[in-house]
This record gives sequence, structure tokens and C-alpha cells, in this order.
Amino acid sequence: MEIKLTLPVDASNLRDEVTRAHNILHDRKGGAHKNWVGWMDLPSQAAELVADVKAAAHWVRKNCDALLVLGTGGSFFGAAAVIDLLRGVDNNLWNTPQVFFFGHALDAQEMANAVKLVETKSVAINIISKSGTTLEPAMAFEALFKAMSKKYPAAQLQKRIICTTDKEKGTLKQFANKHNLKTFVVPDDVGGRYSVLSPVGLFPIAVAGVDVTMLLEGAGIAAKKYGVSDVTKNDCYRYAAARLALARKKYALDLFCLTNPNATKFGNWLCQLFAESEGKGGHGVFPSVAVYPRDLHSIGQFIQDGSKILFETFIHFSLEDNTRFNAVNNIVYEAAKKAHTVGKTPIISIETKKLDEQSVGYLIYFFELACAMYCVMLGVDPFNQPGVEEYKKHTLEALAKL
Amino acid sequence: MEIKLTLPVDASNLRDEVTRAHNILHDRKGGAHKNWVGWMDLPSQAAELVADVKAAAHWVRKNCDALLVLGTGGSFFGAAAVIDLLRGVDNNLWNTPQVFFFGHALDAQEMANAVKLVETKSVAINIISKSGTTLEPAMAFEALFKAMSKKYPAAQLQKRIICTTDKEKGTLKQFANKHNLKTFVVPDDVGGRYSVLSPVGLFPIAVAGVDVTMLLEGAGIAAKKYGVSDVTKNDCYRYAAARLALARKKYALDLFCLTNPNATKFGNWLCQLFAESEGKGGHGVFPSVAVYPRDLHSIGQFIQDGSKILFETFIHFSLEDNTRFNAVNNIVYEAAKKAHTVGKTPIISIETKKLDEQSVGYLIYFFELACAMYCVMLGVDPFNQPGVEEYKKHTLEALAKL
Repeated sequence: MEIKLTLPVDASNLRDEVTRAHNILHDRKGGAHKNWVGWMDLPSQAAELVADVKAAAHWVRKNCDALLVLGTGGSFFGAAAVIDLLRGVDNNLWNTPQVFFFGHALDAQEMANAVKLVETKSVAINIISKSGTTLEPAMAFEALFKAMSKKYPAAQLQKRIICTTDKEKGTLKQFANKHNLKTFVVPDDVGGRYSVLSPVGLFPIAVAGVDVTMLLEGAGIAAKKYGVSDVTKNDCYRYAAARLALARKKYALDLFCLTNPNATKFGNWLCQLFAESEGKGGHGVFPSVAVYPRDLHSIGQFIQDGSKILFETFIHFSLEDNTRFNAVNNIVYEAAKKAHTVGKTPIISIETKKLDEQSVGYLIYFFELACAMYCVMLGVDPFNQPGVEEYKKHTLEALAKL
Repeated sequence: MEIKLTLPVDASNLRDEVTRAHNILHDRKGGAHKNWVGWMDLPSQAAELVADVKAAAHWVRKNCDALLVLGTGGSFFGAAAVIDLLRGVDNNLWNTPQVFFFGHALDAQEMANAVKLVETKSVAINIISKSGTTLEPAMAFEALFKAMSKKYPAAQLQKRIICTTDKEKGTLKQFANKHNLKTFVVPDDVGGRYSVLSPVGLFPIAVAGVDVTMLLEGAGIAAKKYGVSDVTKNDCYRYAAARLALARKKYALDLFCLTNPNATKFGNWLCQLFAESEGKGGHGVFPSVAVYPRDLHSIGQFIQDGSKILFETFIHFSLEDNTRFNAVNNIVYEAAKKAHTVGKTPIISIETKKLDEQSVGYLIYFFELACAMYCVMLGVDPFNQPGVEEYKKHTLEALAKL
């Protein structure tokens, strides 16, 4: 497993900053972030836990037509990203069990469709919420638990409703205990946007037929390779330092350019990872997503010829498999990079030759580590999200009056 | 049909600029843009043409399980946006005929799925390309015409392959003539990103079961309402002028915030409309998309607390239909606006009470006209796209060596 990294700036002068950030991040005893770096351990999490996830997923695969995953934010983007990338955006048209993601929207028509799924198919539900109180998945769960209870006896519900939640606290954990439902644990030291390789992501991913062992193996290879503090020997840190150098040049926007039609949600996952990690205290390069070649026909004009406010981060699966479509995709990728370089857009590119479980797991860990390193160097806490409280406060005030 | 528009700046001082731009845009005889404002006539296009589109769509709806639309850029985003909004992103799981969009990606696996559709279902194909030479749809059409020819005799192909292309020139028109295929015309005076209400968009939209007459009626209501040059009497121009005022304040980013889970592609359509229209000569506010409440849990942190580089343009279907999910969606919408205002983000909001054919047609015309007016005031040509040539040149050079 290898990636090819190309950078528009030389960030080797940031060597000391990188080493300092590495030490802060890896100080598991007294470090500022010691309670939030559990994601570093996920590639080597207990084999029993992974086996438990796989066994539960196996039961759903064998007995159900559809899994309805209820979650939002970090309890949604990671699994959806991996399933789209590895099984295709039209996965549900071709394969069973279908895997649906609800509980991230508030739409009566969408919820009616979800209820119809429960009524007409053999379904399982995976509700993912550390506290159990997050509004959207809680509302979806309330509606769907009612529909499930009408259809299945209690003994069936115990198999068909899987709660991914806190190990001991919170309303969802209590509910699961009361109804004797299967549970998975959201680790205490892993934040939502870093949780895809925990049971939060692994269970729905496994239900979709993805080999989660290989996914974790890819992440493990990255964890090992990018464990050294020296930026000159660590491509992940070179990337993080180059992004920092571009941020310091006041670029407003980082456009993640994915060259695969199934990669939109992987882009959304990256956007959450970076936006929520760095967008605080007036800081941050805004992350946005483009899917190429499609968006070369839409925002391509702006990138080439519009205001010079952005840099691009290409993520390209070069898939050198001798098919003509993939060969031409490689050509268009190179052509876009050349053209945008002519247009004076700085370009970071990250390429892998394969699009499989291992490479996706590898990239997940690569970006999680790079994002954390980048934020520590930038001087912001990569693991909190104080800004989301403001709208939650206004929401709760208005709900109280409903 | 009404919208409720709220603006963060008073742009009434731009009154003269607005009037001047209105006159430039509406000068159909000698004006700078006289050859490219045919989209203004689409709401009142010939009834025979609309009837022809509906009849062809009716045949497909009656005889086919699936329509495969092949197009990219302006030949893709508009129809996909409308179908998603009005029929839902999971439309293909619930309804027939299914409507698939290919020809905007270069992916061997995706194309294999498309071929499989042809082999296993009763399908029709709608290839959309003015010239016939656009790379991605042309490659897809080559592969799929082969598969269609294997399966269907010539007489069937004549019904099942619909070419939307130039009225007389180009390789696709020639191909259609040779094989006696059904054709629709891409009007000469309508650019790709303004073409959704022409047969480019109308045919696939009609196949998906959307009432295109009502869609055009909504656009017609907007065309009439926003035909006056006085900014104080024209909400569309008030919006365009306010966006210009924000652009002049050097905001880097316009985040289109859509509060419906089926609106992502409508956001993509808006991004093409604005990015390709204004992103030239070093100009432009970069357009990006957020879907709320989902993205309040990801990029919400950045908007609240990150660098102050963006303004938000909310598009909200307030759907006051007494269902609890929609009521709570309205509450979250208001809460997000309040919170982001506290966070010093300028907010434009555009609300409608319905999400139906008429309101979607209305919004399409509203944004097309607003974008054109904004660009004319900004001093850029809203209708060309000189910057996309650079990557096409590099692509063709490399393809020649393949």
C-alpha cells in the first residue's frame, strides 16, 4: 500500500513545528489531547470487538432485506462515505441488504418512506448516538421504533435493533437496557468525526458487505508508516505542513477534488473532518467538494479563471487496469491538474493505484492524522466543536414552545 | 406563488446599476447578450414543442423500465436537480421508469452497471450533447449504443434512443439522421447552464413523472413578476444587487444552504450557474452547497466560529403542513439563521411555502435571472465559459497519444 503525494509548496522549514505537534498529539499521558486520541488505537482495536461487529452484521445480512442506519454528523458521514466508495452510490439498487441512512434530515416525506421500508421489508435498525438526545436521529428512532414494535415481537426487536451508544450513560443506553437490545460502544476517547473505524462506522459498513478487517488493516499500515515525527520521512506530515503553509498564505478555500463518481460522500466526510476540527477562533480554510470530471463542466471555469482564493486537493484512484474508461479518467485527471496549474491554482495531489478496502482504510487514517497534526500546528484544538452549541440552544428554546 | 426574501444588506443605492443591467439584458435587438438570452423565452416556448416532449416521455413511461440519460454539465445538473427535489433522491427505488444519469463520469465499473441495465431491463436512452463531441457522454453513448444494437432491432432503436442536440449541425445530429432517431433541439440561444427548461431538461424530467407544464408555469409566473427594471419593485433584482454588495465586500464564498434532504443536486445546479457565469477575469464568489440540518453537524462549526470569509444563501421550503418533522425542520432553520447571525455571518434567505412543480420552476427562473443580472452588474459576461477550454486542450493532446 503506497500513496503518491505531490505538493505545491516545500514545507520542510516547518520541521520543528511538525515535531512539536507530533509530540503533543502522541503524549498519551499528560498531553492536552490525551482524552481524544483514541482513534489512533482503532486500527489495532480488540479482535473480539471486530468479530462481534462482524457477527452482528452477518446476522443482518442473512436475515434482513434492509438496514436503516439512524445517525447524523460523525455518526453518518464515515460509513456512508466508505459504502459509496466501495459498493457504489447505487448499491441499494443492486445488492441486499440495502443500507439506508436516515436521522440526518427532518423531512416528513423521507420519514414516511422509512416507515414504509419497515412495513414492507425484513429490516434491522442501527441507531447511533452517544447521548441518545441528538434531535434528528432521536426523532427518527421514535417513529421507527413504533413501526418496528407493531411488526415484530420483543424477541425479534432484540435482534433487529442495534444501538451504538455510550458504554453506560445516556438515554439511548438506558433504552437499550430496558428493551434488552444489542449495543455497540462509542469509545469515550473518540469524537464523532474520528469514529468511522469504531463500531459507529464498522457495523453499517460490514452490513453493506465491505471487509472491515481489510479496512482496518489499511488503516494500520498507515498508522505504522506515519508514526515517525520527522516530516522529511512522513508524507502525512508533509501534507499537513503544506496545507498549513497554504493556510498561512490566506487561501480561503480547500477544494477536495475527487476523481470518482462514488466519492462525493468521502468528500463530505473530509469536509466534516477539517471544517469541524479547524473552523474555530476565526481560523480555517473552508473545505468544499468537487467530483471530476463532472464538475470540470461546472465550477471548472471558476477554478481556471475566477478569483484566486482556493487551492485544490486532488484525491485520485488511478486504477491502472487497462479499461478504456479508467485510462481516459487518468488522462482527464492529469489534464485538469496541468490546466489549473496554468491557471495559478496550487495543487496538492494524493494518488493510490487501487480502490479497495485497504486503500480506503489507509486514506481514512492518513487524513485523520493529517487533520489533527495540521490543527495542532495551527494552534486550534482538533477535537472539540464549541460552535455547534449556539444553534442547538436556539433550537431547544424554540422546541420548548412547540 | 410567492417567495419571502430577506437580505443582510440594503442594496437600494444600486438602483441605477440595476436598471442599466436590466436594459443590457433585455435589449434583444442590438444588446451585447442578444444571442444568449433565449432562456428568457423558455417559460412561454411553443406548446407543440412541450406536447412533443410529453408525448415522447409518455411512450417511455409506458414501455420502459428505465431511462438512461447521458450528459454532463448543463446537460445533467438541471434535470437531476428537479427530479431529486420533486421525486426524491431514492426515486429509483420506489418508481418506474427509473431515471439514471450517466455520461458525466469516466468509471469502468459505473459503465458496466449501465450496460447491465441495457441487458436486463426495457430501456430508453437520452443522449444530450449540442455538438456530440463532449468526451464523457460520447464515450458512454458509444458503449451503450453497442449494447442497445445487440438487443433491439433498428425499428426499436428509433423509439428508444432520443438525441437532444443541435438543430442541424454536429456529429450527434448526423448520427441521429443516419439512424433515423428521435431528436429534440438544444436552442441556439440557450447555454448549457440555462437549459433546464428547454427539452434538455424537460424530457428526462417528464419521464420521471414530473408535470413539466406546471414547472414552466411556475417559471412563467417568475418571468412576469421579475420583468420590471425597478429594484425596489423586483425581489429578484434586490437579491442580485445584495449579492453584488456582498461580493464587493470581498466575501470569498457563497454557501447555498438547502434545508431539504433532496436538494443537494439543486445546490449543484446553482453552483454551476453561478461559478461558470461569474468565475472569470479573476472575479467571483465561490459557490458551495450545504444541506441542513445534516451539515450543521459538520461544517456548522466553521460557519459559527471559523474565519469570516463566507455568507449564506438559505433556500428553505417551509412546508407548513402540520407534520411534526416539517415543523421541527422550520424550527431548526430559524435557529441556524439566528445562531449564524450571532456568529456574524451575513444571511440571505429565500423561502417558499411549497415544494411542487410550480415553486421549483419559479425558483429556477428566479436564480437564472438573478445570476445574469448579478454578472452584468459585476462586469462579466454571464453566458460564456472561456476557462474550460484549457483542460479540454490538455485532454485532447493526451488522448491523441493514447
